[in-house]
Amino acid sequence: MRISELSARSGVPLATIKYYLREGLLMPGASVSATRAEYGEEHLRRLALVRALTEVVGLSVQKAREVVALLDAPADGLFEILGRAIGALPPEIPPALRDAEDYPRARAAIERLGQLYDRRFTAVAQLERALAAAEDAGLPLDDARLDAYGEHLGAIAEFDLSRIPSDAEGAVAYAVLGTAVYEPVILALRRLAHQDRAARMLGERAE
Amino acid sequence: MRISELSARSGVPLATIKYYLREGLLMPGASVSATRAEYGEEHLRRLALVRALTEVVGLSVQKAREVVALLDAPADGLFEILGRAIGALPPEIPPALRDAEDYPRARAAIERLGQLYDRRFTAVAQLERALAAAEDAGLPLDDARLDAYGEHLGAIAEFDLSRIPSDAEGAVAYAVLGTAVYEPVILALRRLAHQDRAARMLGERAE
Repeated sequence: MRISELSARSGVPLATIKYYLREGLLMPGASVSATRAEYGEEHLRRLALVRALTEVVGLSVQKAREVVALLDAPADGLFEILGRAIGALPPEIPPALRDAEDYPRARAAIERLGQLYDRRFTAVAQLERALAAAEDAGLPLDDARLDAYGEHLGAIAEFDLSRIPSDAEGAVAYAVLGTAVYEPVILALRRLAHQDRAARMLGERAE
Repeated sequence: MRISELSARSGVPLATIKYYLREGLLMPGASVSATRAEYGEEHLRRLALVRALTEVVGLSVQKAREVVALLDAPADGLFEILGRAIGALPPEIPPALRDAEDYPRARAAIERLGQLYDRRFTAVAQLERALAAAEDAGLPLDDARLDAYGEHLGAIAEFDLSRIPSDAEGAVAYAVLGTAVYEPVILALRRLAHQDRAARMLGERAE
């Protein structure tokens, strides 16, 4: 299809498509003449991904480019690509914490759960910071809570992974978007479960 | 104790304590003379709570005051107080969404889980927004995912509630701080569980 049809079918304005092409977020079409390029379904899929990353997840164009660059030049195995793609998501880790030699709280927690510890993965620094904040608030995560959280979040993660598409581009899109868009769902559902269980426990009625 | 000792024991600077007294975040001490007031353990506990709400959770002084005002004038039952205290936490819900008559996506999800639906609770609007974003990203929450998430987050909520202190001030502090500080822990643990399960599934090794 021509770029005008790509714009019409994707709902992305022509000027935005040209901007994405210049910035490397969208791969070039196939040149069919000096003034015309041909676009296909892969361009439609990519535009949907870029739009979701920037408008729904709220990534900057720079961060969205980091994610799609992993798709365009897959130097590593899928596991490595997924880790780097998810590393582009918030929360931003301060450089001092990101480059730490060790994450003692996170390491102890991950080892207790019998999971792989790889300090290069950004969620390790993220967990370290979260555990330190819990301590600062006077609510350190004890073993019983870690075991309960670990068991149930492990089950959720297994469900998430059971749905991962088998192609690399689909897998990266699902991993990044699914991590980002289901996190607010999970937090809201936990708060609602608190409300539900507390109402039953405290014997009060909702409207 | 005198205010100087309150400052020394709490680690909160004298000027900050005086600011909290003026702003109503800390209740006045008992006057023992025209120039001296006496403070007790309840002031130390309150300072720890205010510090955790502002510095660890990141609430504004205004939002922290909303939370402690619920403790100082408990007009309602504990269930109502807990709901209002947690409503002071981020994410901020846009007024148009907060005042909606109905939250169709959230209501359907909550009813499917067999939980109480009360649209006044801010997490309902939060869930509605999260479910709409998941749709926008092309990853709507289907029933199988909702059931899996609901089951395991319900179990986590039951663990959380099993630890709630029996006194009202302790319960509110635990509910607000526990909701806030364990949310980042939960998100980091989910990402790490993804990494762990993906590594096993994809047959790759960590360092």
